Amino acid sequence: MIDFQTEPENYRHWRVEYDGNVATLFMDVDEAGGLFPGYDLKLNSYDLGVDIELADIVQRMRFEHPAIGTVVLRSGHPKVFCAGANIRMLGGADHAHKVNFCKFTNETRNTFEAAGPESGQSYICAIRGSCAGGGYELALACEHILLTDDGSSNVALPEVPLLAVLPGTGGLTRVTDKRRVRRDLADVFCSTEEGVRGKRALDWKLVDELVPNSKFEETTRNRAAEFAARNAKSGGVTGIPLDPLARTFPDGGSITYSTVEIALDRDLGTATITIHGPDGAPPDSMTALHTAGASTWMLRAARELDDAILHLRFNETGIGVVLFKTTGDIGALMAHETFLLENQADWLAHEILLYWKRVLKRIDVTSRSLVALVEPGSCFAGVLAELLFACDRTYMADGPFEGDNRPEAAFSLSAMNFGPLPMANDLTRLETRFLGAPEKVARAQAQIGEALKSHTAERLELITFALDDIDWHDEIRLFLEERGSFSPDALSGMEANLRFAGPETMETRIFGRLTAWQNWIFQRPNAVGETGALQSYGSGNRAQFDRRRV
Amino acid sequence: MIDFQTEPENYRHWRVEYDGNVATLFMDVDEAGGLFPGYDLKLNSYDLGVDIELADIVQRMRFEHPAIGTVVLRSGHPKVFCAGANIRMLGGADHAHKVNFCKFTNETRNTFEAAGPESGQSYICAIRGSCAGGGYELALACEHILLTDDGSSNVALPEVPLLAVLPGTGGLTRVTDKRRVRRDLADVFCSTEEGVRGKRALDWKLVDELVPNSKFEETTRNRAAEFAARNAKSGGVTGIPLDPLARTFPDGGSITYSTVEIALDRDLGTATITIHGPDGAPPDSMTALHTAGASTWMLRAARELDDAILHLRFNETGIGVVLFKTTGDIGALMAHETFLLENQADWLAHEILLYWKRVLKRIDVTSRSLVALVEPGSCFAGVLAELLFACDRTYMADGPFEGDNRPEAAFSLSAMNFGPLPMANDLTRLETRFLGAPEKVARAQAQIGEALKSHTAERLELITFALDDIDWHDEIRLFLEERGSFSPDALSGMEANLRFAGPETMETRIFGRLTAWQNWIFQRPNAVGETGALQSYGSGNRAQFDRRRV
Repeated sequence: MIDFQTEPENYRHWRVEYDGNVATLFMDVDEAGGLFPGYDLKLNSYDLGVDIELADIVQRMRFEHPAIGTVVLRSGHPKVFCAGANIRMLGGADHAHKVNFCKFTNETRNTFEAAGPESGQSYICAIRGSCAGGGYELALACEHILLTDDGSSNVALPEVPLLAVLPGTGGLTRVTDKRRVRRDLADVFCSTEEGVRGKRALDWKLVDELVPNSKFEETTRNRAAEFAARNAKSGGVTGIPLDPLARTFPDGGSITYSTVEIALDRDLGTATITIHGPDGAPPDSMTALHTAGASTWMLRAARELDDAILHLRFNETGIGVVLFKTTGDIGALMAHETFLLENQADWLAHEILLYWKRVLKRIDVTSRSLVALVEPGSCFAGVLAELLFACDRTYMADGPFEGDNRPEAAFSLSAMNFGPLPMANDLTRLETRFLGAPEKVARAQAQIGEALKSHTAERLELITFALDDIDWHDEIRLFLEERGSFSPDALSGMEANLRFAGPETMETRIFGRLTAWQNWIFQRPNAVGETGALQSYGSGNRAQFDRRRV
Repeated sequence: MIDFQTEPENYRHWRVEYDGNVATLFMDVDEAGGLFPGYDLKLNSYDLGVDIELADIVQRMRFEHPAIGTVVLRSGHPKVFCAGANIRMLGGADHAHKVNFCKFTNETRNTFEAAGPESGQSYICAIRGSCAGGGYELALACEHILLTDDGSSNVALPEVPLLAVLPGTGGLTRVTDKRRVRRDLADVFCSTEEGVRGKRALDWKLVDELVPNSKFEETTRNRAAEFAARNAKSGGVTGIPLDPLARTFPDGGSITYSTVEIALDRDLGTATITIHGPDGAPPDSMTALHTAGASTWMLRAARELDDAILHLRFNETGIGVVLFKTTGDIGALMAHETFLLENQADWLAHEILLYWKRVLKRIDVTSRSLVALVEPGSCFAGVLAELLFACDRTYMADGPFEGDNRPEAAFSLSAMNFGPLPMANDLTRLETRFLGAPEKVARAQAQIGEALKSHTAERLELITFALDDIDWHDEIRLFLEERGSFSPDALSGMEANLRFAGPETMETRIFGRLTAWQNWIFQRPNAVGETGALQSYGSGNRAQFDRRRV
């Protein structure tokens, strides 16, 4: 089992030093610390295990070290900055792992890239040594790139010439769309195995600053201080510890957290994720919120849901459909949510809401069919109601169910559904749902706080189907069986196209265009065949290519 | 050899009836008329040959029948509207053909979709019978869809449930982004093999109009007349004949047109396309232009270049790099171009310019490395200068070449480079090149009409490399050999990502996200393996799927 939970004491590949409002993050990959056997993580190359630690650092930086205004990304390796994703790992990994690995690393890069604008926590990159492939993609996700001018340190995207794959962790997209490197220079850069160094790297906009080697430390310190000075919350704020999640595996078919349960039906290919709303009232003051810390429902549920999704992605690839259910008291959930919304000036309240944005985005790009079931007694409201619109379709119970004493199914919208939780396309899920029909968004917004039963929900076009208790079980069973009979690949492609209508952003381009092309290449014999580049790398044999263009 | 040239007398699959300013286009596919052996084109299913005729019709409609204001797309088959792309053809085709086939059909649909807004020639679709898959994608590209309410006629995108592939000819994108079908309903629709008919098709926005069967003919006529009334040029305009192209194949390694030459180097994997600028002056009046018709240089060169590109795409898949060269007199070319630009009120002048837009877009999405060589005596100006910015990189000769009496290499910009020829992202190629730096576009614009030699061109960032005659041949040879050593797949993916920075449109989404996912699926065993859906279709065997999600 791949576990996404870790903590600083267990890090093998990264080291963080804190100095006032600046943190320095040293990448120093343990060669022998690969997640799987069969490869050494030489030259600061990375695998999923390295990235799980990085994701943990980025997350803890926000919650445990909120006073940090700049994170300087550096290498702890004496010679190289980072050689990118480990090639032997990629060569040995199956297709699904390659794809999931890239998705997770992309999510982590997006997360630290957003930390500056969202939380005043800017990542800057100080490059000494060779910074290649995934290494340069780490740099590209930073707000500022310093390169030392020592005659050898360089940046490179050698994937195409060296490995016959793409710089798939946002590299191509950030080169053109973020750094706005001229496309012909980008073509030259991305087909030059040895990369670019010195003045040319600066002239081509591949780095922001070229620094004489003798001034590299000083300049990096100065730049870190400048970025940190932008962080409004610097000084005086204290983080909260992210305690280990309460997670158990009572049997092979279920996983239990404190607010989230997963029930697996491997024959049917479904996972049912049930989220339990809060039991009690929200904290009664900001002090109480900070004291509660990671145990407050809104943060606990987000962390557990996040972990549940990652678990399913990597450890349960046979699951094709994820069903979302909720239970609990809508009023209690609304009280918790409102408390945070009304206190966003507090860094922790703000961070918890930002985290929900990330968790929901992670759900959006999860390549499983996503279905919400609104049953009697359910608790889809506000942030949990957002799941209804993240899903590919939503079934809602219509009227009371015989012999079921729980309250009739209803859900509620809140301010959370109309702004704070944008998708990757920068629209809310309701704006995306009602693309070009803002009046339908407004019509839904007018219902904030109402208990919406199935007839109203249908009229407002907020659900896909309403079913009464006679049809409920059979119809859903039939749907799940049918869905399970379709090709998983066709469903992945279909869902990736239907979920993100409307405007595109760098983020949608990375998960859409770039990822889809990379996935295609990850299937092509020229990359992954027996004589393809990934297998041939390091073997002494030259890759054999079918030269025909497609 | 696949030939993209055809003419009405040779059509086997389509019939056009003209009535005043309305044309009715009947799809009536000849079952025995497949382009390749091994399949029958049953139920109005289509292959590339059917689409080549459609592309010819769409092109001739603009030039030969400019008075037509509405084209009604209908079926000539007694039972079905269209069953989409032929499955046995897809099952038997190699990967490259599938991909190229989809690209060409997409281009044709984009072309007739744009005919209304651009030329007042609106395509509307009148559906009777089953309209499935690629058939419904034809409808989706129309401006208006009428469906008869006869209890059986329907629209469907059954690709996912039936064939384990995507509706890849724009279907998914147009459903969400053009027709703005709600994403959950789109999910239901695209996973329902039997499609949707009657009121539900209307309610879900899958069609624009549901018509009682008894009123179908009358309503279709009325709608056609309404759309035709919008066409400002209706009545009084006379088309020009698109004569067969003058094309010869003097030997296995070259193709010659009147203004375009292709020289193939199959060992090196390159095709050199040389475009010869006009010899004489432009027509001296609009009457002269219309009399010259298809023989006028601007139209002739566009048609020949278009055919050359398609020829290379389908018949020369071993060619990885296309080199563009030009020869001729820049002044003469500018005179021809200016004549059209200044007379755009004339439909023919306008159409010729629109055609150049399409040809250049076709070049943009051609998955070969594109390189422009600006040599002494070259004629890159205006519309031909646009090739410099369509290419992945541009090499320019620096200074006089010893023993070469031709004029020193220089090129010129014109108004054509600053508006009339947008890319699929709706920006000009120079705006895309200088994304986020409008001052660089303005700086180039200030040079309109100047002969730009290499130093100025470098300063304006309009070329990639300037090389003097000592380096020219060796450097380019080296580059071509290196390019030829890279994986063609990685290059296709890289170029598809680097070429289209900036905003996305429905068109870029179709060629980017949708196509990339479809290409991925076209490689997946669940679709194309021995027990995959495409092979199993019609065999009586059920497809066997690996249920693991990627």
